[in-house]
Amino acid sequence: MKTIAVVGLGLIGGSLAAGLRGFEDYQVTGLVRRQATADYALEHQVVDAVSLDPAAVLPQADVTFLCMNPRQITAYLQEHRSDFKAGSLVCDVCGIKGAILEAAECLPPEVDFIGCHPMAGTEFSGIENSFPTLFRGAHFILTARPESTPEHVALIRRMAAFLGCRDIVCTTAEQHDSIIAYTSQLMHIVAAAVCDDAELFQCRGFEGGSFRDVTRVAAMDVDMWTELFSLNAPALSKVLQRMEDNLHSYRTAIENADVERIHTKLTYSSERKRRMSLPGPGQFTLEALHK
Amino acid sequence: MKTIAVVGLGLIGGSLAAGLRGFEDYQVTGLVRRQATADYALEHQVVDAVSLDPAAVLPQADVTFLCMNPRQITAYLQEHRSDFKAGSLVCDVCGIKGAILEAAECLPPEVDFIGCHPMAGTEFSGIENSFPTLFRGAHFILTARPESTPEHVALIRRMAAFLGCRDIVCTTAEQHDSIIAYTSQLMHIVAAAVCDDAELFQCRGFEGGSFRDVTRVAAMDVDMWTELFSLNAPALSKVLQRMEDNLHSYRTAIENADVERIHTKLTYSSERKRRMSLPGPGQFTLEALHK
Repeated sequence: MKTIAVVGLGLIGGSLAAGLRGFEDYQVTGLVRRQATADYALEHQVVDAVSLDPAAVLPQADVTFLCMNPRQITAYLQEHRSDFKAGSLVCDVCGIKGAILEAAECLPPEVDFIGCHPMAGTEFSGIENSFPTLFRGAHFILTARPESTPEHVALIRRMAAFLGCRDIVCTTAEQHDSIIAYTSQLMHIVAAAVCDDAELFQCRGFEGGSFRDVTRVAAMDVDMWTELFSLNAPALSKVLQRMEDNLHSYRTAIENADVERIHTKLTYSSERKRRMSLPGPGQFTLEALHK
Repeated sequence: MKTIAVVGLGLIGGSLAAGLRGFEDYQVTGLVRRQATADYALEHQVVDAVSLDPAAVLPQADVTFLCMNPRQITAYLQEHRSDFKAGSLVCDVCGIKGAILEAAECLPPEVDFIGCHPMAGTEFSGIENSFPTLFRGAHFILTARPESTPEHVALIRRMAAFLGCRDIVCTTAEQHDSIIAYTSQLMHIVAAAVCDDAELFQCRGFEGGSFRDVTRVAAMDVDMWTELFSLNAPALSKVLQRMEDNLHSYRTAIENADVERIHTKLTYSSERKRRMSLPGPGQFTLEALHK
């Protein structure tokens, strides 16, 4: 029996651990800091085994997933750089890749590292909100190092497939961080900015599906997202600038009551959206409502 | 048997008609312009009866719902102002109320008018996408006239309850249009503006739930939303200005790499979101995924 160690059993770690139970000939061991989390994890079968002692788990683990906030991951890599098993694979699953791959350079050459980012989450945190199907239908982004072994890349692919991920997307840390600034970080700032509006609490009773959808992720994990935004500031501020410009362009057309311009702009935007035709969990909503 | 006439069987009209079938001692008659829509409506039991002839339906209808685009509604009110049954109630269900209530002033005094706005919809259009449970859990906003009868207001309340709406919210046309600029129209422009980003098509494979949720409504009915935005331009441009300011404030904090400020802002925004704690269809998603 081989071992997958999952360090940190929050929403993502808990879901990953539970989703990987039964994968090939691996057992899943959780590594946590609090006894309460350990108890919960065992009681709810989030893991096969659990420990509070890194020294008892890391040297035995064939794969280690670091499922904490970015700065905790970089600190953990530093602190435990000599504790990982030779020939083993260490991965993280956080939403930033540049800073993480840089930090992973402290690992000895006999320990492989691959940055992972399964594109899933909910607006809830903690092991209580984790569930094994969280990654079903999600893209699994992978940023390997040039020296990462093909065997380890293939292993991650099989794990992603086992989790039910839609596909594996291989990219560089730089490209990941640049695109994620747009597809993920901007969405969170848009949601937050909508909630900053002075009229928020006056609008109760007047909100429909679009308002709920756009603001859903505003109830985010503040510590984690502060780190993610800070570690990706240059890319993110560029994307924010573009969003402001695009909003402003709509405002100009609307202020000028330029009906033709509004129509042209909406035709352009809605066609782009239709061309994207994004598949995924979001589409389950309508189907569910139809039933 | 009394009659509810539903004029226009698109997404909203079709869903409303189907949802009202079986309500008290009313039968639901659809009024459409195309034979194909009439055939579809009967075949899929969207209505009890259907007609292409307003003169055959309007003078008999006890309640008439106008389910077209705003400018079609105002034109229809003008054209058919003498065709509605004395003592009957005419309603619209579109997303703007000021212009509609103004247009309804052409009705004779013996015809009542109440503006309605059930806060539901999807990113799809047409009768093929309609379904009777569309309004389940939605707010039903009602803008009555001072001279609207209590019996008609009570009738609308019972209909909204029959449709499964969460609650009835009574307001004025002015307040409706001002708040809807924020809760609904802004969300559609945000979705459109996100899709205007130059990197949209490069981001395939990197999008998760938040991107799908925020951009969902960008595939909107262009003609209808052009009218809705144009008819509410002053309120909407104010809301857009506030959104630009709130985004800009985040950008400033991020450009300055001001970690403390980012943390403070996210704490503020996310607490506001949690205080709103919006119930509704959006929450079904997570529950559905849990299963």
